[in-house]
Amino acid sequence: MLNQIRIVLVNTSDQRNIGSAARAMKTMGLTELVLVAPLEEPQGKAQALAAGATDVLANAIRVDTLAEALADCSLVLATSARNRTLDWPQLTPREAGEKAIQEGVQGAKIAIVFGREASGLTNEELQQSNFHIHIPANPDYSSLNLAMAVQTVSYELRMAYLAAQEQAPVAADEYPLHKELESFYEHFEQVLTKSGFIVRQHPGLVMTKLRRLFTRTRLEQNELNILRGVLASLEKHLPNSKA
Amino acid sequence: MLNQIRIVLVNTSDQRNIGSAARAMKTMGLTELVLVAPLEEPQGKAQALAAGATDVLANAIRVDTLAEALADCSLVLATSARNRTLDWPQLTPREAGEKAIQEGVQGAKIAIVFGREASGLTNEELQQSNFHIHIPANPDYSSLNLAMAVQTVSYELRMAYLAAQEQAPVAADEYPLHKELESFYEHFEQVLTKSGFIVRQHPGLVMTKLRRLFTRTRLEQNELNILRGVLASLEKHLPNSKA
Repeated sequence: MLNQIRIVLVNTSDQRNIGSAARAMKTMGLTELVLVAPLEEPQGKAQALAAGATDVLANAIRVDTLAEALADCSLVLATSARNRTLDWPQLTPREAGEKAIQEGVQGAKIAIVFGREASGLTNEELQQSNFHIHIPANPDYSSLNLAMAVQTVSYELRMAYLAAQEQAPVAADEYPLHKELESFYEHFEQVLTKSGFIVRQHPGLVMTKLRRLFTRTRLEQNELNILRGVLASLEKHLPNSKA
Repeated sequence: MLNQIRIVLVNTSDQRNIGSAARAMKTMGLTELVLVAPLEEPQGKAQALAAGATDVLANAIRVDTLAEALADCSLVLATSARNRTLDWPQLTPREAGEKAIQEGVQGAKIAIVFGREASGLTNEELQQSNFHIHIPANPDYSSLNLAMAVQTVSYELRMAYLAAQEQAPVAADEYPLHKELESFYEHFEQVLTKSGFIVRQHPGLVMTKLRRLFTRTRLEQNELNILRGVLASLEKHLPNSKA
């Protein structure tokens, strides 16, 4: 899954940052690095900083334009140091990790784009993305080193990936169907009307509040069965009971 | 709050990592850096990498032993590259961030300890902590650069800090008291017994399952009031009703 996610570095000016980014990526399980017209070719200094991740560096793909780097991706997330200056949907690194993994499990190719050390991405580049990622840094000093930003976002990708792995697959029959829930609410309302708690002419917000409560808790099938049983056992004692 | 959290670097051998760590800290709003017997004094190279965080570097405190660095802290979290080799309580960076902020708001001084570039912390050093932090890195290449580890943990501290800031203070009267909930469960059981749903001699797990459901949803006061009203309205129709 993580191999569907590529890290794209645009016009990086210091090759050491490319090396450090490669290392950061590999520690988090990412391997695909794309360099858009780097200003300095990654050589000895980049390799030194890549440490055990020289393979990521060696396999890095070099392209001339951002468009080429993104061509086969269906989800593009672009990091931005600015907080909502463009009116574009914005994610925290955590939300970005979750979104990427969510779409990744469905087979999407995903790109995470990082801009220049000094100036980030241009507005035109930012507009080639579906979402912006903003790292909520200290407003008094928000200047993360490029490779540190790669580390932070890669960390969240890995955390989301691990969470998805750990999530026990929910058995399809563990939760009731929508129509079963609707039928429960109908039954509940009927019982409360017969008991006199809900006055048919002035039903008020009782059912809305009960729906909110049970939606929040996400009723499980066995719980719904108990509640249906409870309603049936009470209904027998109510006037006009059809039971 | 973040100023109650100090970053402790033990026997750092490369001053550039001290500089990068200072920058990483400041971008996340942390300012207190303690150096335990660094092998290289932070000078020009560290300052270059600290970039806009030279103040953090200049204010760094230098001590000879880890014990001195931790003396006035009530919560000590030590990073470990090893996954549970010592039998010590272990946290992810996210859990560590949450724990630190939780205790920080209660006034605690907190230390986060990072070991040597090549070999981390010794077992003896690890045992001076309350919890270990393990960054869940790629098992095939888990070697995060020291400053990258500082960035990752500092990021989680900031995320937890921001989440705590945003959390609307819950009004004390929004949630029912424990005794009110217990009284609700008693009432519920009584109604279900009268209706015949619970057989007194064989009560089964009905109440346990209902408690689980309502505990999970965390009933609000107004919801509890509705449910009490529902029970009362039903009880009137039941045999042996005291109403």
